[in-house]
Amino acid sequence: MNTELKRAPIGVFDSGLGGLTVAAAIAQALPDESMIYLGDTARVPYGNRSPETVVRYFERNAAFLQRQGVKLIVVACNTVSAQLHHIKWQGEVPVLGVIEPGARAALLASKPNQPLTVLGTKATVASGAYVSALQSQEPQRKVYQKACPLFVPLVEEGWLEHSVTRQVAEEYLGFLKDIPATTVILGCTHYPLLRPVIESIVAEFQGPEARVVDTAKAVANEVVELLNHLDLRCPAEAPKGIRKFYVTDSPEQSEIVAGRFWGENVTQADAPLHFEHVDIDICPKERR
Amino acid sequence: MNTELKRAPIGVFDSGLGGLTVAAAIAQALPDESMIYLGDTARVPYGNRSPETVVRYFERNAAFLQRQGVKLIVVACNTVSAQLHHIKWQGEVPVLGVIEPGARAALLASKPNQPLTVLGTKATVASGAYVSALQSQEPQRKVYQKACPLFVPLVEEGWLEHSVTRQVAEEYLGFLKDIPATTVILGCTHYPLLRPVIESIVAEFQGPEARVVDTAKAVANEVVELLNHLDLRCPAEAPKGIRKFYVTDSPEQSEIVAGRFWGENVTQADAPLHFEHVDIDICPKERR
Repeated sequence: MNTELKRAPIGVFDSGLGGLTVAAAIAQALPDESMIYLGDTARVPYGNRSPETVVRYFERNAAFLQRQGVKLIVVACNTVSAQLHHIKWQGEVPVLGVIEPGARAALLASKPNQPLTVLGTKATVASGAYVSALQSQEPQRKVYQKACPLFVPLVEEGWLEHSVTRQVAEEYLGFLKDIPATTVILGCTHYPLLRPVIESIVAEFQGPEARVVDTAKAVANEVVELLNHLDLRCPAEAPKGIRKFYVTDSPEQSEIVAGRFWGENVTQADAPLHFEHVDIDICPKERR
Repeated sequence: MNTELKRAPIGVFDSGLGGLTVAAAIAQALPDESMIYLGDTARVPYGNRSPETVVRYFERNAAFLQRQGVKLIVVACNTVSAQLHHIKWQGEVPVLGVIEPGARAALLASKPNQPLTVLGTKATVASGAYVSALQSQEPQRKVYQKACPLFVPLVEEGWLEHSVTRQVAEEYLGFLKDIPATTVILGCTHYPLLRPVIESIVAEFQGPEARVVDTAKAVANEVVELLNHLDLRCPAEAPKGIRKFYVTDSPEQSEIVAGRFWGENVTQADAPLHFEHVDIDICPKERR
Protein backbone atom coordinates (compact mmCIF):
# COMPACT_ATOMS: atom_id res chain seq x y z
CA MET A 1 0.00 0.00 0.00
CA ASN A 2 1.20 3.46 -0.98
CA THR A 3 2.85 5.24 1.97
CA GLU A 4 1.67 8.60 0.68
CA LEU A 5 -1.93 7.44 0.88
CA LYS A 6 -1.40 6.12 4.40
CA ARG A 7 -0.18 9.55 5.41
CA ALA A 8 -3.19 11.26 3.79
CA PRO A 9 -5.62 12.96 6.16
CA ILE A 10 -8.98 11.61 7.32
CA GLY A 11 -11.75 13.86 5.98
CA VAL A 12 -14.67 14.68 8.27
CA PHE A 13 -17.64 16.88 7.42
CA ASP A 14 -20.83 18.10 9.04
CA SER A 15 -23.50 20.69 8.25
CA GLY A 16 -21.83 22.88 10.86
CA LEU A 17 -19.80 22.45 14.01
CA GLY A 18 -21.74 19.65 15.73
CA GLY A 19 -19.56 17.13 13.88
CA LEU A 20 -16.61 18.35 15.93
CA THR A 21 -17.93 16.04 18.69
CA VAL A 22 -17.21 13.15 16.30
CA ALA A 23 -13.95 14.65 15.00
CA ALA A 24 -12.71 15.04 18.59
CA ALA A 25 -13.45 11.39 19.34
CA ILE A 26 -11.53 10.37 16.21
CA ALA A 27 -8.61 12.65 17.16
CA GLN A 28 -8.56 11.09 20.61
CA ALA A 29 -8.56 7.54 19.21
CA LEU A 30 -6.01 8.34 16.46
CA PRO A 31 -3.84 11.19 17.76
CA ASP A 32 -1.15 10.75 15.06
CA GLU A 33 -3.47 10.87 12.05
CA SER A 34 -3.92 14.05 10.02
CA MET A 35 -7.48 15.33 9.66
CA ILE A 36 -9.38 17.79 7.50
CA TYR A 37 -12.70 18.99 8.92
CA LEU A 38 -15.32 20.80 6.84
CA GLY A 39 -18.29 22.53 8.49
CA ASP A 40 -20.87 23.76 5.95
CA THR A 41 -21.79 26.74 8.12
CA ALA A 42 -23.11 28.75 5.14
CA ARG A 43 -25.98 26.24 4.87
CA VAL A 44 -26.37 24.86 8.40
CA PRO A 45 -28.72 23.42 9.66
CA TYR A 46 -29.56 20.49 7.36
CA GLY A 47 -32.05 18.89 9.75
CA ASN A 48 -35.26 20.37 8.30
CA ARG A 49 -34.27 20.07 4.64
CA SER A 50 -35.56 17.62 2.04
CA PRO A 51 -33.64 14.43 1.14
CA GLU A 52 -32.84 15.82 -2.34
CA THR A 53 -31.20 18.92 -0.92
CA VAL A 54 -29.29 16.92 1.69
CA VAL A 55 -27.93 14.63 -1.04
CA ARG A 56 -26.83 17.65 -3.10
CA TYR A 57 -24.99 19.07 -0.08
CA PHE A 58 -23.32 15.70 0.57
CA GLU A 59 -21.98 15.64 -2.98
CA ARG A 60 -20.37 19.05 -2.69
CA ASN A 61 -18.84 18.42 0.72
CA ALA A 62 -17.47 15.01 -0.26
CA ALA A 63 -16.07 16.37 -3.54
CA PHE A 64 -14.28 19.13 -1.63
CA LEU A 65 -12.67 16.62 0.77
CA GLN A 66 -11.72 14.35 -2.12
CA ARG A 67 -9.96 17.28 -3.82
CA GLN A 68 -7.97 17.72 -0.59
CA GLY A 69 -6.66 14.17 -1.01
CA VAL A 70 -8.26 12.50 2.01
CA LYS A 71 -8.06 8.72 2.42
CA LEU A 72 -11.47 8.30 4.09
CA ILE A 73 -14.58 10.50 4.38
CA VAL A 74 -16.46 10.42 7.68
CA VAL A 75 -19.96 11.88 7.44
CA ALA A 76 -20.19 13.34 10.96
CA CYS A 77 -23.79 14.39 10.44
CA ASN A 78 -26.75 12.14 11.14
CA THR A 79 -29.03 13.95 8.67
CA VAL A 80 -26.64 13.24 5.78
CA SER A 81 -25.76 9.74 7.04
CA ALA A 82 -29.47 8.94 7.00
CA GLN A 83 -29.46 9.48 3.21
CA LEU A 84 -26.26 7.52 2.44
CA HIS A 85 -28.15 4.49 1.14
CA HIS A 86 -29.76 6.75 -1.51
CA ILE A 87 -26.43 8.15 -2.65
CA LYS A 88 -24.54 6.79 -5.61
CA TRP A 89 -21.10 8.00 -4.58
CA GLN A 90 -18.85 8.03 -7.65
CA GLY A 91 -15.67 8.95 -5.75
CA GLU A 92 -12.83 6.57 -5.01
CA VAL A 93 -12.54 7.41 -1.32
CA PRO A 94 -14.50 5.20 1.11
CA VAL A 95 -17.34 6.91 2.98
CA LEU A 96 -18.41 6.11 6.56
CA GLY A 97 -21.62 7.44 8.11
CA VAL A 98 -22.50 7.70 11.80
CA ILE A 99 -25.75 5.74 11.87
CA GLU A 100 -24.56 2.14 11.43
CA PRO A 101 -21.82 2.45 14.10
CA GLY A 102 -24.24 4.28 16.39
CA ALA A 103 -26.88 1.61 15.99
CA ARG A 104 -24.40 -1.17 16.78
CA ALA A 105 -23.17 0.69 19.88
CA ALA A 106 -26.73 1.23 21.10
CA LEU A 107 -27.57 -2.47 20.74
CA LEU A 108 -24.43 -3.35 22.70
CA ALA A 109 -25.30 -0.86 25.44
CA SER A 110 -28.89 -2.03 25.82
CA LYS A 111 -30.29 -5.04 27.60
CA PRO A 112 -31.67 -7.83 25.40
CA ASN A 113 -35.15 -6.93 24.15
CA GLN A 114 -35.03 -3.48 25.71
CA PRO A 115 -36.69 -0.98 23.36
CA LEU A 116 -34.60 1.79 21.83
CA THR A 117 -35.40 5.48 21.40
CA VAL A 118 -33.86 7.62 18.67
CA LEU A 119 -33.70 11.41 19.09
CA GLY A 120 -32.78 13.32 15.94
CA THR A 121 -33.60 16.05 13.45
CA LYS A 122 -36.83 15.98 11.46
CA ALA A 123 -34.95 14.70 8.41
CA THR A 124 -33.17 11.91 10.30
CA VAL A 125 -36.39 10.73 11.94
CA ALA A 126 -38.35 10.92 8.66
CA SER A 127 -35.69 8.79 6.94
CA GLY A 128 -36.17 5.91 9.39
CA ALA A 129 -32.46 5.16 8.93
CA TYR A 130 -31.84 4.28 12.59
CA VAL A 131 -34.89 2.02 12.68
CA SER A 132 -33.61 0.17 9.60
CA ALA A 133 -30.06 -0.08 10.97
CA LEU A 134 -31.26 -1.39 14.35
CA GLN A 135 -33.85 -3.79 12.97
CA SER A 136 -31.53 -5.15 10.29
CA GLN A 137 -29.52 -6.55 13.21
CA GLU A 138 -32.40 -7.36 15.54
CA PRO A 139 -35.69 -7.39 13.65
CA GLN A 140 -37.74 -7.83 16.82
CA ARG A 141 -36.43 -4.76 18.62
CA LYS A 142 -39.01 -2.09 19.24
CA VAL A 143 -37.72 1.36 18.23
CA TYR A 144 -39.29 4.70 19.16
CA GLN A 145 -38.30 7.94 17.41
CA LYS A 146 -38.72 11.63 18.23
CA ALA A 147 -37.71 14.69 16.19
CA CYS A 148 -36.36 17.49 18.39
CA PRO A 149 -35.96 20.50 16.04
CA LEU A 150 -35.32 23.08 18.78
CA PHE A 151 -32.33 21.23 20.29
CA VAL A 152 -29.88 22.46 17.60
CA PRO A 153 -30.80 26.17 17.90
CA LEU A 154 -30.68 25.89 21.71
CA VAL A 155 -27.15 24.44 21.53
CA GLU A 156 -26.14 27.15 19.06
CA GLU A 157 -27.51 29.80 21.43
CA GLY A 158 -25.35 28.21 24.16
CA TRP A 159 -28.34 27.54 26.45
CA LEU A 160 -26.97 24.13 27.44
CA GLU A 161 -28.39 24.02 30.96
CA HIS A 162 -30.98 26.78 30.71
CA SER A 163 -34.43 26.27 32.24
CA VAL A 164 -35.94 26.82 28.78
CA THR A 165 -33.84 23.96 27.42
CA ARG A 166 -35.05 21.74 30.23
CA GLN A 167 -38.67 22.66 29.49
CA VAL A 168 -38.24 21.99 25.76
CA ALA A 169 -36.61 18.63 26.51
CA GLU A 170 -39.40 17.72 28.93
CA GLU A 171 -41.93 18.43 26.19
CA TYR A 172 -40.10 16.43 23.52
CA LEU A 173 -39.37 13.53 25.89
CA GLY A 174 -42.80 13.45 27.58
CA PHE A 175 -43.71 10.25 25.69
CA LEU A 176 -40.97 8.39 27.61
CA LYS A 177 -43.28 8.42 30.67
CA ASP A 178 -45.65 6.09 28.83
CA ILE A 179 -43.22 3.50 27.46
CA PRO A 180 -40.90 0.96 29.10
CA ALA A 181 -37.33 1.97 29.99
CA THR A 182 -35.30 2.38 26.78
CA THR A 183 -31.77 2.99 25.55
CA VAL A 184 -31.83 6.52 24.15
CA ILE A 185 -29.62 7.25 21.12
CA LEU A 186 -28.45 10.86 20.69
CA GLY A 187 -28.93 10.77 16.92
CA CYS A 188 -27.56 14.23 16.11
CA THR A 189 -24.01 15.43 16.65
CA HIS A 190 -25.24 18.53 18.50
CA TYR A 191 -27.09 16.58 21.16
CA PRO A 192 -24.12 15.35 23.25
CA LEU A 193 -23.88 18.95 24.52
CA LEU A 194 -27.38 18.58 25.98
CA ARG A 195 -26.53 15.20 27.51
CA PRO A 196 -26.72 16.35 31.16
CA VAL A 197 -30.25 17.73 30.67
CA ILE A 198 -31.43 14.81 28.53
CA GLU A 199 -29.93 12.23 30.88
CA SER A 200 -31.60 13.70 33.96
CA ILE A 201 -35.01 13.83 32.25
CA VAL A 202 -34.65 10.28 30.93
CA ALA A 203 -33.79 9.09 34.46
CA GLU A 204 -36.75 11.01 35.90
CA PHE A 205 -39.25 9.72 33.32
CA GLN A 206 -37.94 6.15 32.95
CA GLY A 207 -35.99 5.27 36.08
CA PRO A 208 -32.55 3.68 36.49
CA GLU A 209 -33.05 1.00 33.81
CA ALA A 210 -32.88 3.61 31.02
CA ARG A 211 -29.62 4.79 29.52
CA VAL A 212 -28.35 7.39 27.05
CA VAL A 213 -25.71 6.65 24.41
CA ASP A 214 -23.96 9.03 22.10
CA THR A 215 -22.45 7.77 18.92
CA ALA A 216 -19.19 9.74 18.62
CA LYS A 217 -17.00 7.16 20.35
CA ALA A 218 -18.57 4.28 18.42
CA VAL A 219 -17.84 6.09 15.15
CA ALA A 220 -14.23 6.70 16.20
CA ASN A 221 -13.79 2.99 16.99
CA GLU A 222 -15.19 2.10 13.60
CA VAL A 223 -12.77 4.52 11.89
CA VAL A 224 -9.87 2.72 13.60
CA GLU A 225 -11.15 -0.68 12.49
CA LEU A 226 -11.80 0.47 8.93
CA LEU A 227 -8.32 2.00 8.53
CA ASN A 228 -6.77 -1.18 9.93
CA HIS A 229 -8.87 -3.31 7.60
CA LEU A 230 -7.92 -1.19 4.55
CA ASP A 231 -4.28 -1.06 5.66
CA LEU A 232 -4.49 2.74 5.65
CA ARG A 233 -3.19 3.62 9.14
CA CYS A 234 -0.53 6.28 9.05
CA PRO A 235 2.90 4.71 9.77
CA ALA A 236 4.29 5.17 13.28
CA GLU A 237 7.46 6.83 11.96
CA ALA A 238 5.47 9.43 9.99
CA PRO A 239 5.78 13.10 10.93
CA LYS A 240 3.17 14.27 13.44
CA GLY A 241 -0.26 14.59 11.82
CA ILE A 242 -1.76 18.00 11.23
CA ARG A 243 -5.37 19.06 11.51
CA LYS A 244 -7.08 21.62 9.34
CA PHE A 245 -10.54 23.06 9.90
CA TYR A 246 -12.61 24.68 7.13
CA VAL A 247 -15.99 26.40 7.22
CA THR A 248 -18.11 27.74 4.35
CA ASP A 249 -19.28 30.86 6.21
CA SER A 250 -16.90 33.33 7.81
CA PRO A 251 -14.55 31.70 10.38
CA GLU A 252 -14.82 34.22 13.25
CA GLN A 253 -18.10 32.98 14.75
CA SER A 254 -16.95 29.35 14.39
CA GLU A 255 -13.78 30.00 16.37
CA ILE A 256 -15.82 31.45 19.21
CA VAL A 257 -18.07 28.42 19.65
CA ALA A 258 -15.90 25.53 18.38
CA GLY A 259 -14.49 24.75 21.81
CA ARG A 260 -17.97 23.84 23.00
CA PHE A 261 -18.03 20.92 20.54
CA TRP A 262 -14.37 19.98 20.35
CA GLY A 263 -14.14 19.66 24.10
CA GLU A 264 -11.25 20.23 26.46
CA ASN A 265 -10.07 16.67 26.73
CA VAL A 266 -8.49 16.23 23.31
CA THR A 267 -4.73 16.53 23.18
CA GLN A 268 -4.08 19.24 20.63
CA ALA A 269 -1.06 21.47 20.95
CA ASP A 270 -2.45 24.27 18.83
CA ALA A 271 -5.78 24.83 20.60
CA PRO A 272 -7.93 26.94 20.29
CA LEU A 273 -9.05 25.71 16.89
CA HIS A 274 -8.28 27.85 13.87
CA PHE A 275 -10.73 27.86 10.94
CA GLU A 276 -10.26 28.84 7.32
CA HIS A 277 -13.02 29.93 4.99
CA VAL A 278 -13.62 27.91 1.83
CA ASP A 279 -16.18 28.48 -0.93
CA ILE A 280 -17.43 25.09 -2.12
CA ASP A 281 -20.11 26.70 -4.32
CA ILE A 282 -17.97 26.76 -7.43
CA CYS A 283 -19.07 25.41 -10.78
CA PRO A 284 -18.18 21.78 -11.46
CA LYS A 285 -16.69 22.94 -14.78
CA GLU A 286 -14.30 25.26 -12.99
CA ARG A 287 -13.03 22.47 -10.78
CA ARG A 288 -9.83 20.65 -11.53
CA MET B 1 -43.60 53.71 -20.47
CA ASN B 2 -43.68 50.21 -21.92
CA THR B 3 -46.98 48.48 -21.18
CA GLU B 4 -45.26 45.08 -21.07
CA LEU B 5 -43.01 46.30 -18.26
CA LYS B 6 -45.99 47.71 -16.34
CA ARG B 7 -47.59 44.28 -16.51
CA ALA B 8 -44.42 42.57 -15.27
CA PRO B 9 -44.61 40.97 -11.84
CA ILE B 10 -43.24 42.38 -8.60
CA GLY B 11 -40.40 40.14 -7.36
CA VAL B 12 -40.22 39.38 -3.63
CA PHE B 13 -37.64 37.20 -1.92
CA ASP B 14 -36.73 36.07 1.57
CA SER B 15 -34.42 33.50 3.11
CA GLY B 16 -37.50 31.34 3.66
CA LEU B 17 -41.21 31.83 4.21
CA GLY B 18 -41.16 34.70 6.73
CA GLY B 19 -41.18 37.14 3.80
CA LEU B 20 -44.70 35.94 2.99
CA THR B 21 -45.84 38.34 5.75
CA VAL B 22 -44.51 41.16 3.55
CA ALA B 23 -45.71 39.57 0.29
CA ALA B 24 -49.22 39.26 1.75
CA ALA B 25 -49.25 42.95 2.72
CA ILE B 26 -48.18 43.86 -0.84
CA ALA B 27 -50.84 41.57 -2.31
CA GLN B 28 -53.45 43.23 -0.13
CA ALA B 29 -52.35 46.74 -1.14
CA LEU B 30 -52.00 45.84 -4.84
CA PRO B 31 -54.44 42.99 -5.54
CA ASP B 32 -54.20 43.34 -9.34
CA GLU B 33 -50.41 43.17 -9.63
CA SER B 34 -48.63 39.96 -10.54
CA MET B 35 -46.03 38.71 -8.07
CA ILE B 36 -43.17 36.20 -8.02
CA TYR B 37 -42.06 35.08 -4.57
CA LEU B 38 -38.79 33.25 -3.93
CA GLY B 39 -38.06 31.59 -0.56
CA ASP B 40 -34.47 30.33 -0.30
CA THR B 41 -35.53 27.42 1.90
CA ALA B 42 -32.43 25.34 1.00
CA ARG B 43 -30.30 27.88 2.88
CA VAL B 44 -32.69 29.35 5.48
CA PRO B 45 -32.04 30.86 8.06
CA TYR B 46 -29.74 33.73 7.05
CA GLY B 47 -29.85 35.44 10.46
CA ASN B 48 -26.64 33.95 11.96
CA ARG B 49 -24.57 34.15 8.79
CA SER B 50 -21.75 36.55 7.97
CA PRO B 51 -22.31 39.69 5.83
CA GLU B 52 -20.24 38.20 2.97
CA THR B 53 -22.44 35.11 2.77
CA VAL B 54 -25.64 37.16 3.00
CA VAL B 55 -24.46 39.36 0.11
CA ARG B 56 -23.67 36.27 -1.98
CA TYR B 57 -27.18 34.90 -1.33
CA PHE B 58 -28.73 38.27 -2.24
CA GLU B 59 -26.97 38.22 -5.60
CA ARG B 60 -28.29 34.80 -6.51
CA ASN B 61 -31.85 35.50 -5.42
CA ALA B 62 -31.97 38.87 -7.18
CA ALA B 63 -30.46 37.40 -10.37
CA PHE B 64 -33.12 34.69 -10.37
CA LEU B 65 -35.94 37.23 -10.04
CA GLN B 66 -34.41 39.41 -12.73
CA ARG B 67 -34.31 36.43 -15.10
CA GLN B 68 -38.06 36.05 -14.44
CA GLY B 69 -38.59 39.57 -15.79
CA VAL B 70 -39.77 41.33 -12.64
CA LYS B 71 -40.15 45.14 -12.62
CA LEU B 72 -39.14 45.63 -8.98
CA ILE B 73 -37.33 43.48 -6.40
CA VAL B 74 -38.55 43.65 -2.81
CA VAL B 75 -36.07 42.22 -0.31
CA ALA B 76 -38.56 40.87 2.24
CA CYS B 77 -35.78 39.85 4.62
CA ASN B 78 -34.32 42.14 7.25
CA THR B 79 -30.97 40.31 7.36
CA VAL B 80 -30.40 40.91 3.64
CA SER B 81 -31.88 44.42 3.71
CA ALA B 82 -29.37 45.27 6.46
CA GLN B 83 -26.55 44.64 3.94
CA LEU B 84 -28.07 46.53 0.99
CA HIS B 85 -25.81 49.56 1.47
CA HIS B 86 -22.79 47.24 0.97
CA ILE B 87 -24.17 45.77 -2.25
CA LYS B 88 -23.20 47.06 -5.66
CA TRP B 89 -26.25 45.81 -7.52
CA GLN B 90 -25.46 45.68 -11.23
CA GLY B 91 -29.00 44.78 -12.32
CA GLU B 92 -31.41 47.14 -14.03
CA VAL B 93 -34.36 46.38 -11.77
CA PRO B 94 -34.86 48.68 -8.76
CA VAL B 95 -34.41 47.05 -5.35
CA LEU B 96 -36.35 47.95 -2.19
CA GLY B 97 -35.40 46.71 1.27
CA VAL B 98 -37.58 46.55 4.38
CA ILE B 99 -35.45 48.55 6.82
CA GLU B 100 -35.86 52.12 5.53
CA PRO B 101 -39.68 51.84 5.27
CA GLY B 102 -39.81 50.09 8.64
CA ALA B 103 -37.72 52.78 10.30
CA ARG B 104 -39.93 55.54 8.87
CA ALA B 105 -43.09 53.76 10.06
CA ALA B 106 -41.64 53.28 13.55
CA LEU B 107 -40.77 56.98 13.86
CA LEU B 108 -44.31 57.88 12.78
CA ALA B 109 -45.81 55.45 15.31
CA SER B 110 -43.69 56.66 18.22
CA LYS B 111 -44.07 59.74 20.38
CA PRO B 112 -41.48 62.50 19.86
CA ASN B 113 -38.24 61.64 21.66
CA GLN B 114 -39.52 58.20 22.71
CA PRO B 115 -36.67 55.66 22.45
CA LEU B 116 -36.97 52.83 19.95
CA THR B 117 -36.16 49.14 20.38
CA VAL B 118 -35.17 46.91 17.44
CA LEU B 119 -35.63 43.14 17.70
CA GLY B 120 -33.91 41.14 14.97
CA THR B 121 -31.53 38.37 14.01
CA LYS B 122 -27.89 38.43 15.10
CA ALA B 123 -26.84 39.62 11.65
CA THR B 124 -29.42 42.43 11.50
CA VAL B 125 -28.49 43.69 14.97
CA ALA B 126 -24.74 43.44 14.26
CA SER B 127 -25.20 45.49 11.07
CA GLY B 128 -26.68 48.43 12.99
CA ALA B 129 -28.79 49.13 9.88
CA TYR B 130 -31.93 50.10 11.82
CA VAL B 131 -29.95 52.38 14.11
CA SER B 132 -28.47 54.14 11.06
CA ALA B 133 -31.85 54.38 9.31
CA LEU B 134 -33.56 55.80 12.41
CA GLN B 135 -30.79 58.20 13.38
CA SER B 136 -30.30 59.46 9.82
CA GLN B 137 -33.80 60.90 10.21
CA GLU B 138 -33.64 61.82 13.89
CA PRO B 139 -30.03 61.85 15.10
CA GLN B 140 -31.02 62.38 18.74
CA ARG B 141 -33.28 59.32 19.01
CA LYS B 142 -32.06 56.70 21.43
CA VAL B 143 -32.21 53.21 19.87
CA TYR B 144 -31.90 49.91 21.75
CA GLN B 145 -31.29 46.62 19.95
CA LYS B 146 -31.66 42.96 20.89
CA ALA B 147 -30.83 39.84 18.86
CA CYS B 148 -33.42 37.06 19.39
CA PRO B 149 -31.96 34.00 17.62
CA LEU B 150 -34.46 31.49 19.02
CA PHE B 151 -37.54 33.34 17.73
CA VAL B 152 -37.17 32.01 14.16
CA PRO B 153 -36.83 28.32 15.15
CA LEU B 154 -39.76 28.71 17.58
CA VAL B 155 -41.95 30.10 14.78
CA GLU B 156 -40.79 27.32 12.45
CA GLU B 157 -41.69 24.75 15.13
CA GLY B 158 -45.14 26.37 15.28
CA TRP B 159 -44.88 27.14 19.02
CA LEU B 160 -46.49 30.55 18.54
CA GLU B 161 -48.18 30.78 21.94
CA HIS B 162 -46.28 28.05 23.80
CA SER B 163 -45.14 28.65 27.37
CA VAL B 164 -41.55 28.01 26.22
CA THR B 165 -41.90 30.81 23.68
CA ARG B 166 -43.18 33.13 26.39
CA GLN B 167 -40.23 32.23 28.63
CA VAL B 168 -37.71 32.79 25.82
CA ALA B 169 -39.32 36.15 25.00
CA GLU B 170 -39.27 37.16 28.66
CA GLU B 171 -35.55 36.40 28.75
CA TYR B 172 -34.73 38.31 25.55
CA LEU B 173 -36.95 41.26 26.51
CA GLY B 174 -35.93 41.43 30.18
CA PHE B 175 -33.88 44.60 29.53
CA LEU B 176 -37.11 46.46 28.72
CA LYS B 177 -37.87 46.55 32.47
CA ASP B 178 -34.89 48.86 32.98
CA ILE B 179 -35.46 51.37 30.17
CA PRO B 180 -38.20 53.93 29.45
CA ALA B 181 -41.23 52.88 27.40
CA THR B 182 -40.20 52.37 23.77
CA THR B 183 -41.65 51.69 20.35
CA VAL B 184 -40.59 48.13 19.55
CA ILE B 185 -39.81 47.30 15.90
CA LEU B 186 -40.30 43.67 14.81
CA GLY B 187 -37.16 43.65 12.67
CA CYS B 188 -37.51 40.17 11.20
CA THR B 189 -40.30 38.94 8.93
CA HIS B 190 -40.89 35.91 11.18
CA TYR B 191 -41.61 37.96 14.27
CA PRO B 192 -45.14 39.19 13.40
CA LEU B 193 -46.28 35.62 14.17
CA LEU B 194 -45.06 36.09 17.75
CA ARG B 195 -46.73 39.48 18.03
CA PRO B 196 -49.33 38.43 20.63
CA VAL B 197 -46.63 37.07 22.99
CA ILE B 198 -44.22 39.96 22.38
CA GLU B 199 -46.95 42.58 22.74
CA SER B 200 -48.16 41.21 26.07
CA ILE B 201 -44.61 41.08 27.49
CA VAL B 202 -43.82 44.59 26.26
CA ALA B 203 -47.01 45.85 27.93
CA GLU B 204 -46.16 44.00 31.16
CA PHE B 205 -42.54 45.26 31.27
CA GLN B 206 -43.08 48.80 29.95
CA GLY B 207 -46.71 49.73 30.54
CA PRO B 208 -49.30 51.28 28.20
CA GLU B 209 -46.92 53.89 26.70
CA ALA B 210 -44.99 51.22 24.81
CA ARG B 211 -46.04 49.95 21.42
CA VAL B 212 -45.08 47.28 18.88
CA VAL B 213 -44.85 47.93 15.13
CA ASP B 214 -44.33 45.47 12.35
CA THR B 215 -42.94 46.66 9.07
CA ALA B 216 -44.90 44.65 6.48
CA LYS B 217 -47.62 47.26 5.93
CA ALA B 218 -45.07 50.09 5.75
CA VAL B 219 -43.15 48.18 3.08
CA ALA B 220 -46.34 47.57 1.10
CA ASN B 221 -47.17 51.30 1.19
CA GLU B 222 -43.69 52.10 -0.05
CA VAL B 223 -44.07 49.62 -2.91
CA VAL B 224 -47.25 51.43 -3.99
CA GLU B 225 -45.52 54.81 -3.86
CA LEU B 226 -42.45 53.59 -5.70
CA LEU B 227 -44.47 52.00 -8.53
CA ASN B 228 -46.51 55.22 -8.86
CA HIS B 229 -43.34 57.29 -8.88
CA LEU B 230 -41.70 55.10 -11.55
CA ASP B 231 -44.95 54.95 -13.56
CA LEU B 232 -44.85 51.15 -13.30
CA ARG B 233 -48.33 50.37 -11.94
CA CYS B 234 -50.04 47.65 -13.89
CA PRO B 235 -52.83 49.20 -16.04
CA ALA B 236 -56.40 48.81 -14.76
CA GLU B 237 -57.49 47.09 -17.98
CA ALA B 238 -54.72 44.43 -17.73
CA PRO B 239 -55.68 40.78 -17.24
CA LYS B 240 -55.87 39.72 -13.60
CA GLY B 241 -52.39 39.39 -12.10
CA ILE B 242 -50.99 35.98 -11.25
CA ARG B 243 -48.83 34.99 -8.32
CA LYS B 244 -46.10 32.38 -8.42
CA PHE B 245 -44.25 31.00 -5.43
CA TYR B 246 -40.84 29.34 -5.66
CA VAL B 247 -38.68 27.65 -3.03
CA THR B 248 -35.15 26.27 -3.32
CA ASP B 249 -35.79 23.22 -1.11
CA SER B 250 -38.61 20.76 -1.77
CA PRO B 251 -42.06 22.42 -1.87
CA GLU B 252 -44.05 19.98 0.31
CA GLN B 253 -42.98 21.31 3.72
CA SER B 254 -43.44 24.91 2.51
CA GLU B 255 -47.02 24.27 1.47
CA ILE B 256 -47.81 22.93 4.92
CA VAL B 257 -46.61 26.01 6.83
CA ALA B 258 -47.07 28.81 4.28
CA GLY B 259 -50.57 29.68 5.49
CA ARG B 260 -49.13 30.65 8.86
CA PHE B 261 -47.21 33.50 7.18
CA TRP B 262 -49.50 34.39 4.30
CA GLY B 263 -52.48 34.77 6.60
CA GLU B 264 -56.14 34.25 6.00
CA ASN B 265 -57.08 37.81 5.18
CA VAL B 266 -55.55 38.12 1.73
CA THR B 267 -57.93 37.80 -1.18
CA GLN B 268 -56.49 35.00 -3.28
CA ALA B 269 -58.77 32.75 -5.26
CA ASP B 270 -56.28 29.91 -5.55
CA ALA B 271 -55.44 29.43 -1.87
CA PRO B 272 -53.79 27.36 -0.39
CA LEU B 273 -50.49 28.51 -1.84
CA HIS B 274 -48.77 26.28 -4.37
CA PHE B 275 -44.96 26.24 -4.47
CA GLU B 276 -42.58 25.17 -7.20
CA HIS B 277 -39.01 24.05 -6.64
CA VAL B 278 -36.25 25.99 -8.34
CA ASP B 279 -32.50 25.38 -8.24
CA ILE B 280 -30.74 28.76 -8.18
CA ASP B 281 -27.33 27.15 -7.59
CA ILE B 282 -26.48 26.93 -11.25
CA CYS B 283 -23.27 28.21 -12.74
CA PRO B 284 -23.34 31.78 -14.02
CA LYS B 285 -21.96 30.45 -17.31
CA GLU B 286 -24.92 28.13 -17.73
CA ARG B 287 -27.36 30.99 -17.31
CA ARG B 288 -28.97 32.62 -20.29
